[in-house]
Amino acid sequence: MQPTARTTIHRKPQRGSYDREVIHRILDDGLVAHCAFAIEGQPYVIPMVYARLDDQLVLHGAIASRMLAQGAGGVAFCATITIVDGLVLARSWFHHSMNYRSVVVLGTAREISERGEKLRALEALVEHALPGRAHESRAPSEKELAATRVIALSIDEASAKCREGGPLPDDDGELPWWSGVVPLALRASAPVADADVRGPLPASLARWMR
Amino acid sequence: MQPTARTTIHRKPQRGSYDREVIHRILDDGLVAHCAFAIEGQPYVIPMVYARLDDQLVLHGAIASRMLAQGAGGVAFCATITIVDGLVLARSWFHHSMNYRSVVVLGTAREISERGEKLRALEALVEHALPGRAHESRAPSEKELAATRVIALSIDEASAKCREGGPLPDDDGELPWWSGVVPLALRASAPVADADVRGPLPASLARWMR
Repeated sequence: MQPTARTTIHRKPQRGSYDREVIHRILDDGLVAHCAFAIEGQPYVIPMVYARLDDQLVLHGAIASRMLAQGAGGVAFCATITIVDGLVLARSWFHHSMNYRSVVVLGTAREISERGEKLRALEALVEHALPGRAHESRAPSEKELAATRVIALSIDEASAKCREGGPLPDDDGELPWWSGVVPLALRASAPVADADVRGPLPASLARWMR
Repeated sequence: MQPTARTTIHRKPQRGSYDREVIHRILDDGLVAHCAFAIEGQPYVIPMVYARLDDQLVLHGAIASRMLAQGAGGVAFCATITIVDGLVLARSWFHHSMNYRSVVVLGTAREISERGEKLRALEALVEHALPGRAHESRAPSEKELAATRVIALSIDEASAKCREGGPLPDDDGELPWWSGVVPLALRASAPVADADVRGPLPASLARWMR
C-alpha cells in the first residue's frame, strides 16, 4: 500500500515496509493489539485480542467497553501489533537491541452491527489464535451477541517495521564479551483441562503443541 | 497508589489493582512498552524497550526519534506493558479469553540529561531483560551518550489489570468440547553467537536458559 505522511517511517527506514503481504503476515502471527484513542490530547493504550478479517482488523468486547465505544464512535484510532523475536546482545551497551516484527494501523473504526458480518468477525476472533476452534465450541446465543460489540478498522493506512539478525558491526571486536542473538518466542506449556473435561486435546491446539 | 479518574478501571474492576508492588512486578516481568502520544487527536502507538528505575519508567533511543522528542517535550503520554500468560478455551465462543497481566502508566515524561542519571537509566535498560549484562559489555562513549536520548515517565498515575485461571463458569457443561487453559510464556531457544565469539554463554542469560 502507499505510505502516507502519517505512516512513513523516518527512523531506520530500511526496517520499514508498506507491503500488504508483509503486514498481513505479521498481523496473522501476533496475539495482542495495543489499541489507542485520545481524549483531550491524552492517549490511552489498551491491550486487546484481535483478528484479521481480509483487509480489516476486528476487535470485540463488552458493550460497556470505553475503547470499543470510542472506536464505534469514529474517533482517530491506532492499533499496534508487536511480536518479539529475540534479544540482541552486543559488546557495547549502545548496540544492544531487540529483534521484532511490528505493524501500526491508523484510521477510524466502525461498528459491525449486521448479524452475518458480526458472526464472521467473532468467528475470526476465536480462530485467530486457535485455527479450527470455532467448530469445537458453541456459537453465540442471541443474548451473547447483543452483549458484544464488534468494531473494524480498515488495514489501509499501515506500516510494518522489523529487525532481525545479530548486533550491528562495531569496533569492539577485541573486547572479551559474548555477543549474538537469543531467539525468543511465545511457547505453550502443558494444557490444564477444566475438572469436568473428558477426552483428548482439541485439534485447534496443534499450532501450540509443536 | 490512589486511582485517578483517568486510571480507574470500570470494566471488570475485580481484575484491577493500584498496588505499587503489583504494578512494579508486572513492569519488571515485561519486555516491551507500547508507548503513545497524540498529534491533533491522532494517537500513535510505538513499541519501545523500557526499564523500571525505582518509581520511573525509562525509555531511550536515537536523538532523532519522534516518540522521544515528543516525550521530552512534555506531551501527554501513555505507556502500556502487557504480558500474555495463556489462552483460555471455553465451550462457547463467548467465554474464550486470554490470561494476561498489564499495566497502564499515564503522565508527562521529562528528558534525562544529567550525565550520572542518564548512565543509570541506560544501565537499567541493558539490565532489564539481562540482569548483570551491564558488567559484561562496554558502557557508552561520549559520542554514543550524545547520540542517545533518554526520557523518564513517573509511575505515579498507573493501574494494573490481570486475568488468570480457567474459563468462567457457564451452562455448557453438557457440550462435548475440551475447555481449559494453555499457559503461554516467552521462551528462549538456543543462542546464536556472532562468528568471532569465543567462550561460554554469559551469566546474564541465566534467566532465559532455564
